[in-house]
Amino acid sequence: MPEPPGRIAVLGIGLIGGSIGLAAAERVASADVFGYDPDPRAGARAKQVGAIDVAADSVAEACDGAEVIFCAAPVGALTDLVGQALAVAGEDAVVTDVGSTKHDLVERHGSDPRFIGGHPLTGAETAGVEGAREDLFAGARWYLTPTEVSGGLLYDRLQRTIAAFGARPQAIEAGAHDRLMATVSHLPHVWANVLVSQAAEELSRDAERMPDVGPSFRDATRVAGANPSIWADIFTANAEAIADAADEAAARLRQAAAIIRAGDSDKVADWHGAAAVDRGRILAVGGSPGPLIELHARIQNRPGALAELALALGRARLNIEDMALAPASDMSTGLVSLWVAGEEQAEAALELIRDLGHAASRPDGEA
Amino acid sequence: MPEPPGRIAVLGIGLIGGSIGLAAAERVASADVFGYDPDPRAGARAKQVGAIDVAADSVAEACDGAEVIFCAAPVGALTDLVGQALAVAGEDAVVTDVGSTKHDLVERHGSDPRFIGGHPLTGAETAGVEGAREDLFAGARWYLTPTEVSGGLLYDRLQRTIAAFGARPQAIEAGAHDRLMATVSHLPHVWANVLVSQAAEELSRDAERMPDVGPSFRDATRVAGANPSIWADIFTANAEAIADAADEAAARLRQAAAIIRAGDSDKVADWHGAAAVDRGRILAVGGSPGPLIELHARIQNRPGALAELALALGRARLNIEDMALAPASDMSTGLVSLWVAGEEQAEAALELIRDLGHAASRPDGEA
Repeated sequence: MPEPPGRIAVLGIGLIGGSIGLAAAERVASADVFGYDPDPRAGARAKQVGAIDVAADSVAEACDGAEVIFCAAPVGALTDLVGQALAVAGEDAVVTDVGSTKHDLVERHGSDPRFIGGHPLTGAETAGVEGAREDLFAGARWYLTPTEVSGGLLYDRLQRTIAAFGARPQAIEAGAHDRLMATVSHLPHVWANVLVSQAAEELSRDAERMPDVGPSFRDATRVAGANPSIWADIFTANAEAIADAADEAAARLRQAAAIIRAGDSDKVADWHGAAAVDRGRILAVGGSPGPLIELHARIQNRPGALAELALALGRARLNIEDMALAPASDMSTGLVSLWVAGEEQAEAALELIRDLGHAASRPDGEA
Repeated sequence: MPEPPGRIAVLGIGLIGGSIGLAAAERVASADVFGYDPDPRAGARAKQVGAIDVAADSVAEACDGAEVIFCAAPVGALTDLVGQALAVAGEDAVVTDVGSTKHDLVERHGSDPRFIGGHPLTGAETAGVEGAREDLFAGARWYLTPTEVSGGLLYDRLQRTIAAFGARPQAIEAGAHDRLMATVSHLPHVWANVLVSQAAEELSRDAERMPDVGPSFRDATRVAGANPSIWADIFTANAEAIADAADEAAARLRQAAAIIRAGDSDKVADWHGAAAVDRGRILAVGGSPGPLIELHARIQNRPGALAELALALGRARLNIEDMALAPASDMSTGLVSLWVAGEEQAEAALELIRDLGHAASRPDGEA
């Protein structure tokens, strides 16, 4: 039976690094956590909140004797940081990272049996160690990208450590990881940028200010231009896979344009229906009591109205899987889209919303 | 001074038609509303809720003596319905519709000076007359598409009637309207379909189930395959403009792919920054105290947690302009994205959320 790791190093102590430290302190009884951050204040704060046991003054000091080394810097700084860690890490240490793209790292360091890339799916938040939580990884997928030279004992130790944090480790080839992320995570950001620029040009052509657009435009463009410091790094680090995904999306858009332009309503309906099937399949929530069902409620947009609705649903033990609020143009009312799991919850929720005096409907036309 | 209309006809009594009737009853003192629906039960229900004064048995009976005639059928049935209305309407009647595309209607009926196309922006909800509200149009943009043969007095009467409903009428050329809607309303639906199909194929290639995707994928694909009966009509009725918009989007995606693939980080940053500027400009909310600012809060995903948060914000008179909830993979917590207007509200909201014990941050990196 392998031992749990005795010493863990965290290089870079922001939201992710701090949460690794807290998770180790809380969930890996044997662990001492040594932390290093180029900003000494980050180390001091991390120690204060219990995210690390020792604030080291250098990468070398943090890595000395460490069995698992987490590199948790921004994507653009990871390749160098992993290199520094490997240079000072012991022969029996495993070095990993938390970056959202893997190709460059594996290309540069994959020939070292001690490096195994990693990527916990926790969202691209920018908050510092103040936002760190010991349960940040609870239930979250954590990808690992071992290569054919990765040490088996090292891989085992790494995945056991991550599992101890409550995460669900899964091995994936680095290229497949980057293609997957390009499509499901990075491409929506590219699209948001494309759509707002196209809309801005369309608007200026007709000298018309933006109409009161519906939720679909808001939803699709929420991330347009967001978090430039993070996204410039990601677009650069995963350039090839993102560019490929965008080119493929362009080809699919042209196909869609051709189907729509041809005007064969059966073919349009087939294409549209296939999308509903695909969405249901890939967004199905494991273990939930049924497929997600969308409900609409129209509420007064006064402060507290949404809260009352959500409270009433909560009291009735109807959990909201997803929610979006689109205010009317005069801000007097809002259309709330709610997703609940399964027919039974949907029917109960509709009845409850109507009992509260709000108009409610199922946009799929049922009930 | 022109008289307000004495008799209004509503042909098709669902959510929109019923709301026109209620708005007329409430806001146009002089109006009698005659309603016709092919389903006699709809007429009876509309009369019951006060949406119409008289349930007519035919288009001809409803239009007899009417000064303003609203055709409120689904998009696919509008061209025929407007034709029937024009055939029986008096010489001094104005006939309009509420469809979300205008080109076919204007091409077919635009040579009749009595027809002026219309489109109130109220969202594409499918609920019947039960969801009708007298203030559905309050503050909403209502496009009108007059042509060079449209009667001036008729246009004036129509736009005064719509303004009386609380809407903000605005004239626009039919082709410009359809191009605008294609980009800001229909294209996000095409994209949602494209993205889910591409993701489904990518997932099957790597034999990987869907990872716990972030809010950007959920947001962009929420409408994938949604409301097939409505969207098949819209894709058909506005085929040319939607196909053009999709082709243009494809070209822009290829340009984005080229910028990203080239890997010049300054150019990537410029492209990404331009999108932020475009989004801020076109989604700016009239009359609000500042630009929309995004906040993140991480809450426990138990029933009621979101409600408590929203209630507390409400009590502090901090209004939520837009909101999206993305549950964590294990459903134990949720990341709430909130948009509030202006720096002052943003700072106050952040402080309040933290006082409630939730982690809160600004993803733009400020504060």
